[in-house]
Amino acid sequence: MKERISFIGMGIMGTPMAANLLKAGYPLTVYTRTRSKAEPLLAAGAAWDDSPAQAASSADVVITCLPDTPDVEQVLLGPQGVTESAREGLVCIDMSTISPEATRRMSEELLAKGTVLLDAPVSGGQIGAVEGKLSIMVGGPAEALDRVRSVLDCLGRAVTHCGPSGCGQLTKLANQVMVIHTIMSIAEGLAFAERAGLNLETTHAVTCAGAAYSHSLKVLGAKILAGDMKPAFMVDLQLKDLRLIMETARQTGQPLPGTALAMQLLQSLSAQGRGRDGTQALIDILRQLAGKMASR
Amino acid sequence: MKERISFIGMGIMGTPMAANLLKAGYPLTVYTRTRSKAEPLLAAGAAWDDSPAQAASSADVVITCLPDTPDVEQVLLGPQGVTESAREGLVCIDMSTISPEATRRMSEELLAKGTVLLDAPVSGGQIGAVEGKLSIMVGGPAEALDRVRSVLDCLGRAVTHCGPSGCGQLTKLANQVMVIHTIMSIAEGLAFAERAGLNLETTHAVTCAGAAYSHSLKVLGAKILAGDMKPAFMVDLQLKDLRLIMETARQTGQPLPGTALAMQLLQSLSAQGRGRDGTQALIDILRQLAGKMASR
Repeated sequence: MKERISFIGMGIMGTPMAANLLKAGYPLTVYTRTRSKAEPLLAAGAAWDDSPAQAASSADVVITCLPDTPDVEQVLLGPQGVTESAREGLVCIDMSTISPEATRRMSEELLAKGTVLLDAPVSGGQIGAVEGKLSIMVGGPAEALDRVRSVLDCLGRAVTHCGPSGCGQLTKLANQVMVIHTIMSIAEGLAFAERAGLNLETTHAVTCAGAAYSHSLKVLGAKILAGDMKPAFMVDLQLKDLRLIMETARQTGQPLPGTALAMQLLQSLSAQGRGRDGTQALIDILRQLAGKMASR
Repeated sequence: MKERISFIGMGIMGTPMAANLLKAGYPLTVYTRTRSKAEPLLAAGAAWDDSPAQAASSADVVITCLPDTPDVEQVLLGPQGVTESAREGLVCIDMSTISPEATRRMSEELLAKGTVLLDAPVSGGQIGAVEGKLSIMVGGPAEALDRVRSVLDCLGRAVTHCGPSGCGQLTKLANQVMVIHTIMSIAEGLAFAERAGLNLETTHAVTCAGAAYSHSLKVLGAKILAGDMKPAFMVDLQLKDLRLIMETARQTGQPLPGTALAMQLLQSLSAQGRGRDGTQALIDILRQLAGKMASR
C-alpha cells in the first residue's frame, strides 16, 4: 500500500512536486501558509491539513519544501509544528535548501521522538520539478532513504545518498559554489567579448564547442544573447544559497575568495532592485563596471 | 594542386599539427629554433627550412605555432624573418595564442608586402592537435580564410571566422576568461566539499549530473579525485593567457574582477614552483588557505 504523504510548502518547486506525487497515486494532504496557493492541488484531489502538526499525525511521510532555514524550523519545531505529533516510524523529508548545521540539530530533536529527518535538497529548477527530473541529494540514515526511495523516484531522475544528516545540504551547497563560478564565467567572458567588439553569437557558439563549456554557458549564455533577464534561478535565491555557503565555509574553516567575490557582485544586483531577475543579469554589473548602461 | 606549406614551431601542439598536414599529403617544410625537435617530422618526409625567410620564399602558406607574442614577432618581423621574403599571395596563419593588438599591427606590416596574416588560435589541447579535432578561431579577411580553409580543415573539426584581424585571438581570450572560472569552480567547490567531510566521488558524480556541469568539472575534477596533477593545460601557459587577457581588458576598459582574482591564486602556484603542473592544481591553493597540506 502506498504511503500517505503530507506536503508542506506550495511554492514554484513544491506545487509541481506535490502534483507529481498525486499523479503517481499517493494519498496526499497539503499545507501551506497561504491556503489559496494550495487550491490547484486541492482541486486535483489533495486534502487540506490545518497545521504541520495535523499533517504529521495523519501521514507516513511529511515532505517540506520551503524558502529558508527559519521556515523549516517553524514548520518542524514551532507551535502546531511537526514535533507536536511526531512519532516512531514517521519520516520527514526536507527538500528545501537550508543550513546543514540547523538540519543536523533538527534531525536530533526529531529523532528523540523516533522520527527520522532526511535532508533532500534538489537541483534542476522548476522545469525539473514539473517533469519529475530533479537531482535529489539526500543526507540521513541510508535505511530511512531506502524506505522512501520510491516516493523520491517520482520526483527526480537521480536520487543520491550523500552521507549522514546534513550531507544532502552540504552537497547542494558545493553544487552552488560551482554554479556561481560558471555564472561569473559567462558574465566576465561575454562582457570581455562584447567590450572587445566581437560578435556575441559567434563567440557563444565557439566557446560552447570547447573547453569553456558549461551548462550555464549554454542555457544562461543564450538568455544573455537574447537580452532575456527573466529568471531560470533568481538572484535573491542564489544570494540566500551563497549566505548558507559562506556561513558553512566559515564554520569548516574553508576560505572561498572566488565565491565571496561573486556574492558581492550579485549583491550589487540585489541592491539595484534586481533581486528577482535571473542570475545571468550579473553581466550587467560587468557592463556597469565598464561604464556601459545595463541591458534594461 | 595542394599548397606548399611551411610550418614554424615544433612544440607539443605544432608537431602533431604538422604531422597531420603531412599525412594529408601537403608538401611540407618545417623550421624551429632547436632543429632536433624537428627530427620526427623530417624522418616522416618533411624538408628543413634554414630560416623563416627561406620558409616564406618557397611556401604558399606559412603556419606559425609558437609560445608567446615576442616569438611570433621575431619569426615574422625579425632578422631572417618572414617579411624579408613576404610577397603578394603568401598567406601566413598564426596559430599561437598571442596579443590581439600585436596581431593587428603585424598583419598591417605584412599586408604592405601583399601578404595576408590570419590569426587562428586553437582550443582542444594536445589530444585535439593529435586527432585533428581542434576548434580554430580565425581573425582576418574572410576571403583569405576561404583560400586556406582546406588546410585548416585537416587540423580541426570546427573552423570559425570570428571577424577581422585580431578577432581570432580575442575570441580565444574570451574562451580563456570562461575556462579560468570553470577551473575556480571545481577548485572552490571540491575544496568546500572536502573540508565539509563529503565523499568527493559522490559529490563529483552528483554535481556533474546537474546545473554545475562544466567540461572542466568532468575532466579536471576526475584528475583531482585521482590526485593527478599532471597537465592537461599547464599553469604557466594559463598565466600567459591571463596576462594577455588582463592587458587586453585594460585596453578595452573592461574590468574583470573574477579573472584577476583567479590569476592571483594561479600565480601563487607558479611562485611555489608548480608552473608546470596542470591548472587543476589550483585546488591545492584552496587547501593551503584552509591550512591543509597540498596534495604533494
